[in-house]
Amino acid sequence: MIASPALQKLIDALRCLPGVGPKSAQRMTLHLLERDREGARVLSEALAEAVARIGHCRLCRNFTESDTCEICNDSRRERNLICVVETPADVLAVEQSASFRGLYFVLMGHLSPIDGIGPEDIGLETFRQRVIDEGIEEVILATNPTVEGEATAYYLTEMLHPIGVKVSRIAHGVPLGGELEYVDGSTLAHALAGRRPVE
Amino acid sequence: MIASPALQKLIDALRCLPGVGPKSAQRMTLHLLERDREGARVLSEALAEAVARIGHCRLCRNFTESDTCEICNDSRRERNLICVVETPADVLAVEQSASFRGLYFVLMGHLSPIDGIGPEDIGLETFRQRVIDEGIEEVILATNPTVEGEATAYYLTEMLHPIGVKVSRIAHGVPLGGELEYVDGSTLAHALAGRRPVE
Repeated sequence: MIASPALQKLIDALRCLPGVGPKSAQRMTLHLLERDREGARVLSEALAEAVARIGHCRLCRNFTESDTCEICNDSRRERNLICVVETPADVLAVEQSASFRGLYFVLMGHLSPIDGIGPEDIGLETFRQRVIDEGIEEVILATNPTVEGEATAYYLTEMLHPIGVKVSRIAHGVPLGGELEYVDGSTLAHALAGRRPVE
Repeated sequence: MIASPALQKLIDALRCLPGVGPKSAQRMTLHLLERDREGARVLSEALAEAVARIGHCRLCRNFTESDTCEICNDSRRERNLICVVETPADVLAVEQSASFRGLYFVLMGHLSPIDGIGPEDIGLETFRQRVIDEGIEEVILATNPTVEGEATAYYLTEMLHPIGVKVSRIAHGVPLGGELEYVDGSTLAHALAGRRPVE
């Protein structure tokens, strides 16, 4: 393809974004140059600032540009309840549900011996210490219902039970609005096993 | 949504990209921060460099960071044949077909009186002068087969005929690999009107 070096460099650089292939990258580049140079300038600055300033919260490991994040600093939240999730995206998802008022602990991954990711890589020792030090009453395990997520939840349960803290796992079952006909077998099995008496 | 200011700024900034909504922007932001900070840094620089350096070729109006673009500077190209297209993306599309060895003129738009875009906004006077000065032999009109593209092609034809240059329009018809059954009526009408004798 004939494109000037700076143009080609931008097309190549845009491919670092997930879901952006060569055609999309080309379309984005031409769109920015033709119609939104101001947007490109703002994006360039936002990227540089994010890379330079965003690190991890000392307490929950979520992304933040401060020492501790806004959720950990929020005095209105219940401080004896911690929800353990795999990624910052999971925190956003739970926050958007507006159904949880405690704190979080973000593993930034899950246990995966095959990839060499052990308990120390996802901060479990720090977490154990925090649960003890702060006298946490309940830990909600909200790791993904995948093999690795379940293994991580199991490891956490084994680690936390000796401390005497209450450990719970979020419910898995048929999603709201989902039709039974289209729900996979494993989910249905979970939904049946996790049934509750109707009062 | 609870996100640190720098994180939220990046999510908002990514939405200037075409086809990127709030969910994609969030996914891209978290992907970059979790897995590709180097990519984010490179992208930031590429954006800044592109915005600062890329302008328009003095001859063909295509994007370039020099005074004239690489195609206009290429001495191996036929210099008496010019293909008129609407956008830089069209130049890339024609180049990828590897079927044209002349030069280009990029309108950076099309005539659209309703949006206040007249002949001077798409550089037609400069183009007319260039055709006269350089003794161009043929101008190929490759504007889009839309109402505005056709109007622009018509205007160009009227403008160029008095000069005595040969003016042609790219063929419109059934695309290769397309099935007649699924081709729209206007395209079929074009294909029939533009039929050629089989030799």
